[in-house]
Amino acid sequence: MTTPIYIMTLVGVVAFAVSGVIEARRKQMDLVGISAAAFLTAFGGGTVRDILLGRYPIFWVTEQSYVAFVLVIAVVAFFVSRRMTLTPDAIAIPDAIGLGVFSATGTQIAADLNVPVLIAIVMGVITGSVGGVLRDVVCNEIPAIFARTQLYATCAALGAIVYLASRAIGADTQTGLIAGSVATIALRLAAIRLNLRLPA
Amino acid sequence: MTTPIYIMTLVGVVAFAVSGVIEARRKQMDLVGISAAAFLTAFGGGTVRDILLGRYPIFWVTEQSYVAFVLVIAVVAFFVSRRMTLTPDAIAIPDAIGLGVFSATGTQIAADLNVPVLIAIVMGVITGSVGGVLRDVVCNEIPAIFARTQLYATCAALGAIVYLASRAIGADTQTGLIAGSVATIALRLAAIRLNLRLPA
Amino acid sequence: MTTPIYIMTLVGVVAFAVSGVIEARRKQMDLVGISAAAFLTAFGGGTVRDILLGRYPIFWVTEQSYVAFVLVIAVVAFFVSRRMTLTPDAIAIPDAIGLGVFSATGTQIAADLNVPVLIAIVMGVITGSVGGVLRDVVCNEIPAIFARTQLYATCAALGAIVYLASRAIGADTQTGLIAGSVATIALRLAAIRLNLRLPA
Repeated sequence: MTTPIYIMTLVGVVAFAVSGVIEARRKQMDLVGISAAAFLTAFGGGTVRDILLGRYPIFWVTEQSYVAFVLVIAVVAFFVSRRMTLTPDAIAIPDAIGLGVFSATGTQIAADLNVPVLIAIVMGVITGSVGGVLRDVVCNEIPAIFARTQLYATCAALGAIVYLASRAIGADTQTGLIAGSVATIALRLAAIRLNLRLPA
Repeated sequence: MTTPIYIMTLVGVVAFAVSGVIEARRKQMDLVGISAAAFLTAFGGGTVRDILLGRYPIFWVTEQSYVAFVLVIAVVAFFVSRRMTLTPDAIAIPDAIGLGVFSATGTQIAADLNVPVLIAIVMGVITGSVGGVLRDVVCNEIPAIFARTQLYATCAALGAIVYLASRAIGADTQTGLIAGSVATIALRLAAIRLNLRLPA
Repeated sequence: MTTPIYIMTLVGVVAFAVSGVIEARRKQMDLVGISAAAFLTAFGGGTVRDILLGRYPIFWVTEQSYVAFVLVIAVVAFFVSRRMTLTPDAIAIPDAIGLGVFSATGTQIAADLNVPVLIAIVMGVITGSVGGVLRDVVCNEIPAIFARTQLYATCAALGAIVYLASRAIGADTQTGLIAGSVATIALRLAAIRLNLRLPA
């Protein structure tokens, strides 16, 4: 893995792990439950993407540092969060960062394998949103993607399209990844702030 | 993929996507939720089968047309269904068609890889029923397979056995697939009509 | 598969299948639901491990005897259990045995593929606990791992570490597997008896 990709993935892993820890803590889980929630949120989307693409080894299986980061976050958060009151909004920012970074990197990884363009977008959406779905399932929340939340998968799809469009007009991988991530994060946070939802 | 297999798979994909759309619509999901439900129902069973068999690329990853069909169905259904009242029975027929076609094609794909006969039947049941299980989970219904519904997995197993028996007595693949599909669909619709259930 | 590994895996498969059957029976499932619960509990953990490690063929796909054992257990249990009253505690012992055996064998399989040591432990925990999580999900119980039960994943992690430590000090595979399994089973049963839980 090149250094910029390693770092972007790490940002996504850490952001989603933090969101998992916050949600698990709100549900009074013990250290094992918190670790499992952090693990599922941080690794769920990328793992499903790698399995669907037959891309082995799966990104965290040979990269022990990712697993170590998630466990350290879970342990630290377990003790720190005892003194904090966590509102339901506390996960909004780490969740948006994880969604943005993983939608962009998931699209890039699929596109680099030369899958059709529609499949690359689907892979971006899966990579970005599956972690949050798993977090919500194990924490007994209705997953955002099925709950008419504020544009969850829509933001992921936008990031995927922005990445592919950036590359199509000549941007390099890194610029495309940043553009895609920022687009997703900005739309998601704006949607929460303005309470934008798709019609039912 | 040969043309008859492509077409049978397409029939199963469309039927299950329709069943997913109907159920998601009944639960007031937005366009993203409907698309996700359609996607999971249409691709869930075959994806799990391909992963379990290590059969790459997974059937829809290189076949963009399947994904496009599912998305078009979701969008069209989203707008059309606003003017319809959907009863809980509305999914019976598309669900039975998806169950039948995928049980037969799943068995055929596994058998062609020379797995033991019991494994081929299990793969047929998984291919036929996992999509409906995922649909029911995301739509907050108890999955048919665990709910003592009218012979759900039993129908899938019958279709798998009919396919294998047809081939054993000399039928070609296409004939076997049609025989297996029809057996499953007929038993499932009869079981619903006659309210047949296994004893508990 | 060598004979000792085949037998240990069989012990885990049978123990977890029994635990799935008991739980499904308590929920009044029919024969299909019971079989599906037995199948998911017995094969869930090892299947996820094999998929994550890209280890094909998946352990039960070419080993028809495991599938046959699980189906026979489901059928026998279905008829036998009609005359039994099953308490919620009835699964404690088969569940502990499955957890112990699969945590140890899962760790061994991962370690033999030379993954980093932390990943080997994670694979042991996944192999040991995913079956029980799936059983609890389909039977509408909160999975032990998220429910502050008596040290579920903690026991799996202990077994993984005991296996790796045994090997590090020169024990052979079989001795390590037995030591790891026994450590997990003993801690789990002691934790249930003494009602030990991690703090929240």
